[in-house]
Amino acid sequence: MANGELNRHEQLASDLTQAIREGLLKPGDRLPSVRETCQRRGVSPSTVFQAYGLLQAHGLVEVRPRSGFYVRPQPRPLRPAPQAAVPKPEAMDVSVSALAFDILESTRDPGVVPLGSAFPAPTLFPLDELARAGTRAMRRLRPEQVTTALTIGDPGLRETLRRRYALQGVPLQPDELVVTNGAMEALNLCLQAVTRPGDIVIIESPTFYAALQALERLKLRAVEVATDPAEGVVLEDLERLLDLHTVAACWFMPNLQNPLGAVMSPKRKRQLVELLARHGVPLIEDDVYGELYADGRRPPPAKAFDKDGNVLHCASFSKCLAPGYRVGWAAAGRHVAQVLRLKMMTSLGTSMPSQLAIAEYLVQGGYDRHLRNLRGALSAEQHRARRMVEHSFPAGTRVTLPAGGYFLWLELPPHVDALELHRRAMAAGISTAPGVLFSADRRFVHHLRLNVGHPCDPRVDPALRTLGRIASALGASQRQATGGRRRGAGAS
Amino acid sequence: MANGELNRHEQLASDLTQAIREGLLKPGDRLPSVRETCQRRGVSPSTVFQAYGLLQAHGLVEVRPRSGFYVRPQPRPLRPAPQAAVPKPEAMDVSVSALAFDILESTRDPGVVPLGSAFPAPTLFPLDELARAGTRAMRRLRPEQVTTALTIGDPGLRETLRRRYALQGVPLQPDELVVTNGAMEALNLCLQAVTRPGDIVIIESPTFYAALQALERLKLRAVEVATDPAEGVVLEDLERLLDLHTVAACWFMPNLQNPLGAVMSPKRKRQLVELLARHGVPLIEDDVYGELYADGRRPPPAKAFDKDGNVLHCASFSKCLAPGYRVGWAAAGRHVAQVLRLKMMTSLGTSMPSQLAIAEYLVQGGYDRHLRNLRGALSAEQHRARRMVEHSFPAGTRVTLPAGGYFLWLELPPHVDALELHRRAMAAGISTAPGVLFSADRRFVHHLRLNVGHPCDPRVDPALRTLGRIASALGASQRQATGGRRRGAGAS
Repeated sequence: MANGELNRHEQLASDLTQAIREGLLKPGDRLPSVRETCQRRGVSPSTVFQAYGLLQAHGLVEVRPRSGFYVRPQPRPLRPAPQAAVPKPEAMDVSVSALAFDILESTRDPGVVPLGSAFPAPTLFPLDELARAGTRAMRRLRPEQVTTALTIGDPGLRETLRRRYALQGVPLQPDELVVTNGAMEALNLCLQAVTRPGDIVIIESPTFYAALQALERLKLRAVEVATDPAEGVVLEDLERLLDLHTVAACWFMPNLQNPLGAVMSPKRKRQLVELLARHGVPLIEDDVYGELYADGRRPPPAKAFDKDGNVLHCASFSKCLAPGYRVGWAAAGRHVAQVLRLKMMTSLGTSMPSQLAIAEYLVQGGYDRHLRNLRGALSAEQHRARRMVEHSFPAGTRVTLPAGGYFLWLELPPHVDALELHRRAMAAGISTAPGVLFSADRRFVHHLRLNVGHPCDPRVDPALRTLGRIASALGASQRQATGGRRRGAGAS
Repeated sequence: MANGELNRHEQLASDLTQAIREGLLKPGDRLPSVRETCQRRGVSPSTVFQAYGLLQAHGLVEVRPRSGFYVRPQPRPLRPAPQAAVPKPEAMDVSVSALAFDILESTRDPGVVPLGSAFPAPTLFPLDELARAGTRAMRRLRPEQVTTALTIGDPGLRETLRRRYALQGVPLQPDELVVTNGAMEALNLCLQAVTRPGDIVIIESPTFYAALQALERLKLRAVEVATDPAEGVVLEDLERLLDLHTVAACWFMPNLQNPLGAVMSPKRKRQLVELLARHGVPLIEDDVYGELYADGRRPPPAKAFDKDGNVLHCASFSKCLAPGYRVGWAAAGRHVAQVLRLKMMTSLGTSMPSQLAIAEYLVQGGYDRHLRNLRGALSAEQHRARRMVEHSFPAGTRVTLPAGGYFLWLELPPHVDALELHRRAMAAGISTAPGVLFSADRRFVHHLRLNVGHPCDPRVDPALRTLGRIASALGASQRQATGGRRRGAGAS
């Protein structure tokens, strides 16, 4: 089991996962019978049953009684309402962080309904179990552990992570993994590892504001590429931009993009990775929501298609298991040495109590069950809240139909200024994340990201209704003002 | 007790600490009697006893039986052998990190005697008590705690820290404290908060290599100022450099400087702070070793003399309580808003399990007792190891007599190349920190920092003897080579 080697049943599950991803096994196909597989691979029936059970737990196959295991159908294609926006092709300096900071600071008050927050409700997480795992792990701590693996991360946690990658059909190099202070640090270190001040980085449009903040902090220039609310990065546009500019890196979220919720198909991910490899441009892949797919199977990361260490895959436990523990990681491909150096220089290491608690929790085996429950809770709430929005917001509002996660992205009618909506909502005790945060040129002025990851918070429904009323009032007064100016202009 | 207010006895102790620092109460002075103080302050005798007890615990006063409490004499002035080096006055680009990284990586092997390490022996720390404190704290955790104070830090820990500052006579502004991933992150954030790429930063000579790495990462230029092995930064030289250059910041360690162990006197600290305030240059104060003074009293930070928020004071628990927990902080003066923004952008927050464990440990009250034991153990070992060095190393070796901490700084005879010594020592299973790491222009080629913070490690004495033998051999072969070349030159 040392060095990330898989058990027999895990190896079998990993091989089948790859076969499904590569289309050798298609939705609706029956898996080979247990007896067949036993004979072909020379393994015992219990090994096969365990492997098929794993595939079932990962949502890749389903049992049909008295018939066998079948590859599950793909989740239905989604058709969210907002259209992909077409950004300017020029490189831009970035200065969004002051605005972002003010807005995010304003959402810290626990008395405010947290629809602008980045985190789902902390009550969704197994905090007690994690704490108990931490107690057990710290009891076994040998003193030398606290410093020997400080920079690269606890060996046990790194090994567990590597096994999870392997089980998802993503084999990693032995020393490719660096544990970090959340995904935020991983992304920042990876970005700095492959860029120099003044370089151009391609980001999505709209994009997660932390990407904009990172570019701003490192004095990088942004070029935005259109991102389809269902299909993710528009590859044709990307190709054009790669021809137009000398690009140092791309920072994308191929899985459950923030704020859109788009998931790129495996085919498009493979095309993306190949396109960037041809251009010699590293891909920084932000995959923090990858475990929060609503149904079907875990979407593979773009990293699954990386052949030459060109993809720096970043993720964390902050959104799916342990908020506040600040444990993330980068699988940094051939850039790992530089990432490790930067990690040593910027924060030296990652909290050992946090790392050991999570490693212990993962080994004890309740993580996948927790994830299933979490996905169920978030998905149900996302659909419910989406219907609330459709009923409460003014006509002309469009809202995404994301493939998971806990965000909704709204395009309000053209008369409604989302920043003004944010201000009035804050006055009413409700935070939101206005669209201007999600673009270097503050383009999304009529857009809004809502966090609907608070299934048990009784304040959410009244808050959504209040937001709808404010949006309607803003639309009406703006139309009136425009009409008034027009009338005034006519009279002069 | 909210908002950092002190108890009556703490307030009294704080006032007396200031009086001692400002020279109103001199070494040998008797404190006012308990009765006098009761009358003058309108407090109870037990309040006065508690206050005097605190001053005694902090090493500021001593009891003389049947006489009273007296201000303790200053620790004797130290006269370490190496002289202050005179650095070049020009600004330099920095590129030391690749070398530093290779050397530091090579010290990670637990089989290597860690004389090049940055940490003292982990067995010196109350790791079990911390773990138990963590268990208690996590049991009381309310879910919303994990995210509400994510960026600025846990309110309980910040309050406890603020009280410790106040007890040391350093009042902080209410929101000046930001919790960070160790002091390393605090220092990096503070440096970035007050500089832009290309700016000049004054550092000490020799300086802690992390300062050089931070400058390199942020593309800053270094100007080095001479630092006296006993008295710290040479203020006259500093003043000249401030007139010569446009300086964005100074990064100094006024307490137990790494690698020299120098402690600036309160008077010189005050002069330093006033000088920098006159020039409008922020001081980034690295105070991670401040608690490890060998005898006497805790040296005040330069921050104690800061009147206008110009000093960004950085410290952590990593060297004095909880290595591997990665909890540090910055008291960032008037730059706190910018530091907070950068913190949000680079790592979002600090591990809550680590923060809560330490906060709980501090509240339960064993910290000062632990510090006394730690100081005693480190100081005894430092003196013992210093005598070992004097016996084992070749004639002409000079070694500092630090005022605390766990480092020795050696100046080897001019024939001995310390980098070559490092390489040969590594081959013999002993790590060292060669002097070239401690200067932007790799000036300290005959110098060596030794970590002697491993009192119970039986490998230390043989390792010191081995190092001495290697140094002697290197000196002899180098002398021979030079002599040989000279003879060869004469014969041609």
